[in-house]
Amino acid sequence: MIGGSISLALKRMGFNCKITGVDNNPDHCIEALRLGLADEILPLEPAINQADLVIIAIPVDATSKLLPRVLDIIKDQAVMDVGSAKAEICKVVAGHPNRKRFVASHPMWGTEFSGPAAAKADAFSGKAAVICNKEDSDMDAVHVVENIYKVLGMHVVFMPAKEHDLHTAYISHVSHITSFALANTVLEKEKEDNTIFELASGGFETTVRLAKSHAAMWVPIFKQNKENVLDVLNEHIAQLNKFKSCLESENYEQMNELIRHANTIKRILK
Amino acid sequence: MIGGSISLALKRMGFNCKITGVDNNPDHCIEALRLGLADEILPLEPAINQADLVIIAIPVDATSKLLPRVLDIIKDQAVMDVGSAKAEICKVVAGHPNRKRFVASHPMWGTEFSGPAAAKADAFSGKAAVICNKEDSDMDAVHVVENIYKVLGMHVVFMPAKEHDLHTAYISHVSHITSFALANTVLEKEKEDNTIFELASGGFETTVRLAKSHAAMWVPIFKQNKENVLDVLNEHIAQLNKFKSCLESENYEQMNELIRHANTIKRILK
Repeated sequence: MIGGSISLALKRMGFNCKITGVDNNPDHCIEALRLGLADEILPLEPAINQADLVIIAIPVDATSKLLPRVLDIIKDQAVMDVGSAKAEICKVVAGHPNRKRFVASHPMWGTEFSGPAAAKADAFSGKAAVICNKEDSDMDAVHVVENIYKVLGMHVVFMPAKEHDLHTAYISHVSHITSFALANTVLEKEKEDNTIFELASGGFETTVRLAKSHAAMWVPIFKQNKENVLDVLNEHIAQLNKFKSCLESENYEQMNELIRHANTIKRILK
Repeated sequence: MIGGSISLALKRMGFNCKITGVDNNPDHCIEALRLGLADEILPLEPAINQADLVIIAIPVDATSKLLPRVLDIIKDQAVMDVGSAKAEICKVVAGHPNRKRFVASHPMWGTEFSGPAAAKADAFSGKAAVICNKEDSDMDAVHVVENIYKVLGMHVVFMPAKEHDLHTAYISHVSHITSFALANTVLEKEKEDNTIFELASGGFETTVRLAKSHAAMWVPIFKQNKENVLDVLNEHIAQLNKFKSCLESENYEQMNELIRHANTIKRILK
């Protein structure tokens, strides 16, 4: 989805390039060609050999394994990833002789879907793209990646990988856990009753949308960002417990304050 | 928002009616006229006296106070409410001599906004509308309300008020508490740092959207549906704790299973 969306967006913006696709899944290869996400499909090595820029868009655990191999193969190409956890991947390649050709990055867009069919040409425009630890990368490689994100209509933000991982725990990772847990709450309690799904409308759909997200993508993110996710999850459970005790003690005055405080998020989010 | 949306939708569907607006807030009265949500504004009594159907679309605590007064005034008009908690309102008017003119109902649509400017003509189409305890209402009154919802493009579902309140705890009320709590989690932890809001994109926006909802509407709902909300909230916190212990014990196999279970929500929600 992410790799394909970058490809579609670059083509739409008239960026002059040939996209070579590499994928372990033969169905995805065919789909990518059919949807115009890739101009050709090649095995990893020949694809890298003819590339100017290598974009790794796979789950973060797979990136941790593949990136060192890619850095072994490249000559002077730039390499970027797009994963949602950055500290671990930077650690994995810290001592690699070609480390400076790698740019750790994360375009801030996603959906609950995955795979080539979920690619969208207008996905990234107006969103932020984070580049982490740029001092560990060659300037020219950073410029290539920065330029790609600018072509996609994104604004580039630089920050340390550790800081990125703390922020994404808040704005993305724990939102996903909340959605998964909410889906399981409903599935648990309404096992023998489908009425709920007949009634479910906007609010539920909205909050539970992310619960459709793929385990193969998210478990590795939670694993790589474990400390931050645990920290935020604990805070979130504590906040839920505040609502719980307001209800238990029938302290609706305090509940009112909790909600009015939550409302202040609207000053910040449009 | 709800009253105005019903009005806009009825007009759009060519339903032949005059809409008389009643509102405590003078600004809302002017806004309702300006936006065409009401053809005229009158005080409560004369409005009721000339009406065939009275639609009460205000917070549930205000409905509990107003509905008995409305039932005191009416002759043979039908009266409906649209609130998100139904058992309490049915209890309030249980002994009223005009109880049978009242139809307890809930159209399953809402947003995080409120007030006349948030009214939408296409809000209800394709959604469910619940009518509760219909055996406590006159048949002709039920038919009027049923017909209104059908004109709005909704499918009508009949169920006991207690059952409705359990289901809405799952699909709406606890989703809102989750969003409020998530907003407070972020606001608490990121007090001195605005980076998070620069990075926030789809996933966060989605999950936290409901946190913009109005306390004056929601506290009374949580209060009236306290037992169900507490029950579901406890289950939700228990489900979050499962994710937490998976992380703490680094049991990613089990986390994978929790997510795959949550994914089954997609068989049911489109």
